[in-house]
Amino acid sequence: MPAPQKVLESLDADRQGALDRLFELLRIKSISTDPAYAPECARAAEWLRAQLQSIGFEASVRPTAGLPMVVAKAKGPRADAPNVLFYGHYDVQPVDPLDLWKTDPFAPGLVDSETGQQIVARGAADDKGQLMTFVEACRAYQANGGLPCNVTILFEGEEESGSPSLPAFLTANAKELRSDLMLVCDTNMWNRQTPLITCMLRGLLLEEVTIKGASRDLHSGMFGGPAVNPIHVLAKIIAGLHDEQGRVTLANFYDGVPELPPEVAAQWAALDFDEKEFLGEVGLSEPAGEVGFSVLEQIWARPTCDVNGIFGGYTAQGSKTVLPAQATAKFSFRLVGKQDPQAIASAFRAYVRDLLPPDCEADFTSHGASPALSLPFSSEAIKRAGRALEGEWGRPAVLAASGGSIPIVGLFKRELKMDSLLVGFGLDDDRIHSPNEKYELSSFQKGARSWAAILAALAT
Amino acid sequence: MPAPQKVLESLDADRQGALDRLFELLRIKSISTDPAYAPECARAAEWLRAQLQSIGFEASVRPTAGLPMVVAKAKGPRADAPNVLFYGHYDVQPVDPLDLWKTDPFAPGLVDSETGQQIVARGAADDKGQLMTFVEACRAYQANGGLPCNVTILFEGEEESGSPSLPAFLTANAKELRSDLMLVCDTNMWNRQTPLITCMLRGLLLEEVTIKGASRDLHSGMFGGPAVNPIHVLAKIIAGLHDEQGRVTLANFYDGVPELPPEVAAQWAALDFDEKEFLGEVGLSEPAGEVGFSVLEQIWARPTCDVNGIFGGYTAQGSKTVLPAQATAKFSFRLVGKQDPQAIASAFRAYVRDLLPPDCEADFTSHGASPALSLPFSSEAIKRAGRALEGEWGRPAVLAASGGSIPIVGLFKRELKMDSLLVGFGLDDDRIHSPNEKYELSSFQKGARSWAAILAALAT
Repeated sequence: MPAPQKVLESLDADRQGALDRLFELLRIKSISTDPAYAPECARAAEWLRAQLQSIGFEASVRPTAGLPMVVAKAKGPRADAPNVLFYGHYDVQPVDPLDLWKTDPFAPGLVDSETGQQIVARGAADDKGQLMTFVEACRAYQANGGLPCNVTILFEGEEESGSPSLPAFLTANAKELRSDLMLVCDTNMWNRQTPLITCMLRGLLLEEVTIKGASRDLHSGMFGGPAVNPIHVLAKIIAGLHDEQGRVTLANFYDGVPELPPEVAAQWAALDFDEKEFLGEVGLSEPAGEVGFSVLEQIWARPTCDVNGIFGGYTAQGSKTVLPAQATAKFSFRLVGKQDPQAIASAFRAYVRDLLPPDCEADFTSHGASPALSLPFSSEAIKRAGRALEGEWGRPAVLAASGGSIPIVGLFKRELKMDSLLVGFGLDDDRIHSPNEKYELSSFQKGARSWAAILAALAT
Repeated sequence: MPAPQKVLESLDADRQGALDRLFELLRIKSISTDPAYAPECARAAEWLRAQLQSIGFEASVRPTAGLPMVVAKAKGPRADAPNVLFYGHYDVQPVDPLDLWKTDPFAPGLVDSETGQQIVARGAADDKGQLMTFVEACRAYQANGGLPCNVTILFEGEEESGSPSLPAFLTANAKELRSDLMLVCDTNMWNRQTPLITCMLRGLLLEEVTIKGASRDLHSGMFGGPAVNPIHVLAKIIAGLHDEQGRVTLANFYDGVPELPPEVAAQWAALDFDEKEFLGEVGLSEPAGEVGFSVLEQIWARPTCDVNGIFGGYTAQGSKTVLPAQATAKFSFRLVGKQDPQAIASAFRAYVRDLLPPDCEADFTSHGASPALSLPFSSEAIKRAGRALEGEWGRPAVLAASGGSIPIVGLFKRELKMDSLLVGFGLDDDRIHSPNEKYELSSFQKGARSWAAILAALAT
């Protein structure tokens, strides 16, 4: 079911009001990383509570050990209507370097650009503009007979600080928050005209290994030859982790890696994604990953193993003829589908131990493990959201993936066992976290209409 | 020809006088690394000049940009007698930590030990005690008809500071200093009863390589897969440098590596050298070097390649999902025989370039290169010195090698094209550079007799 015409008309008629409200929120300096701005964060939470209450939500500001949460609830037409939980964050990144801003970061304004008007302010895109698309959609429903779903909203104020209070808050309020589906508006479109649903997020396994040889650093003149060199051992371990095809050699590593559905592969292949340009921007020209997969597939749908850091022996200027007693490397594995982080950690450790020569041992440290997250491409929620977005934008939504993890999504999956539908209207050039952050006016306006359509589609 | 009996008798008769003179020198606080002791260094130089002058040398103190040199000359019996240049250094290491000394480091004394009397003071072994063995031998000859060789003596005062003034001094005084053979008394015996000649010193080639990939550090979520990882490239380079037999794989690496003469190999095999004990002291149990060679052979007579340091990406606590733009390793090659450092540097760089994947480049830095130094085991000087030492100690001298380089020897080879005969009477437990440095009284007394015998043998 498409969004009711009167809801969309309401949104179109109140564009100036919506913009005024967003500007009010953007003027609040809710920087979470600097304790000096804690009162501003509290003010942003209170402002949101008041807004939501004014449109018929039962809303409250909830204290935490850190910055407060805002929780709001509004009922749909029936008790058995779908329950959705919308997540957003009201905190923003710091603004320095301030001298690179062309305008005051907390004095929002509209700026003309070649492609249309842009809202310029800190938080315009990340995440105040995005979260207000959902609030405005709810407002239009509430003014026109009510919401089609049971809606719970959770806004936090510590996302830019790593969400330290969120896990405990979710545990303590699980019953109140658990819903059929989580909606997150913190991602981007494919491009200015093409909506996108982020269906998969790669998981992450972080392992650190220290190879230890002699009991102390040795002189390479005195011991060079007979003494084992832990850097050599570590190099052999790293060199053996990939085969000539760029595949990871660990036992059973590809267990649980799904085949990409042909229609999704076809959609990705048809995207206007220029591999040369993507790589060229960082000084590269050829994909170095798994042979037989496109760059998008390598990033979105294939697992990886990378060394993120290595150190051992003498690392300052010049030379020192030392045979180091140990050497360390930090590994990360990006995981997809149903790959089991614990099984891979075990396989990795067994592989390392297998390569240890006499007199060497390996110390392992885990820096975390989380599985990949995905809504099946064929799931009902994605199908419905896709149709809703296509109705608004006139183009099919790209069913995309993200090479990186989004911690919040993993957290909700872990704590509340909820899947997330990731739809956002940001663009890659929004300069989030940077000076002159912006959000396209069209993203804001059509984003609100999109949420109206998605809520209707989910309720059908 | 053995040393004349009257020379040896002279040495034995004047043992107390020799000890008194050494103690005078040991009382001078000639620490070269601390400018506050520059006057003491000058005093040591002047003391040596006066000593040498008193025994018939033409001796002078020569200023340099740093601390002064002492140069002295005395003629042998004939103009065509062999010319030898004896090198030693009058400067000593600092004494801290002072509280670990049982006696004042500059108040020399004799201490009884299980194995005999020991001279305890800073510089007792390194190098004042050792250099005075040669001076006392010269004194005995001068008191009994004169030296058998033309002898030049050079004492410097900056050896513990890296000899910064020596290269220019050698260049400026090449004609005066150049001789048939350099004698150096700054090394050790095999053990308390067994003399040793250091015949070979491994050379050293120091290369640093930085592998560069992308133009900046990348996010491993955004780029993990298609972006080349310079740490992986470097690991492959390092892993490929040795084969399964522990041999270095560079092209023509073993060109110029000599076979060990069977009689030397047999002598080394018969030494009371306990591989397990040697490795056990640093926590190792099995030799990791080239298969088919003993530990002594690996250290003394075989070339090596070792990574002395490696770094790239994130190296602090915890994890960071970065794909680094570059990674660096520092390599050292220990060289033997006639291995050509420049040829090996070229082979190494070609090997690295060969392994570079697309989009990677390698930056190379040289941190120096010096060939191995050796007097052929079969050379006349070694044969004669060996016979002389055997006569004094009653055991054949071990014809040994040193796994490390001795900078001074390379310097004389480079500047004056002179080979060095390395004979010393130190022991491995002399605690040079450490608190409670000592020199065995037997080393001092039999060392002087040994030099008397060596000078006679060289003159035959």
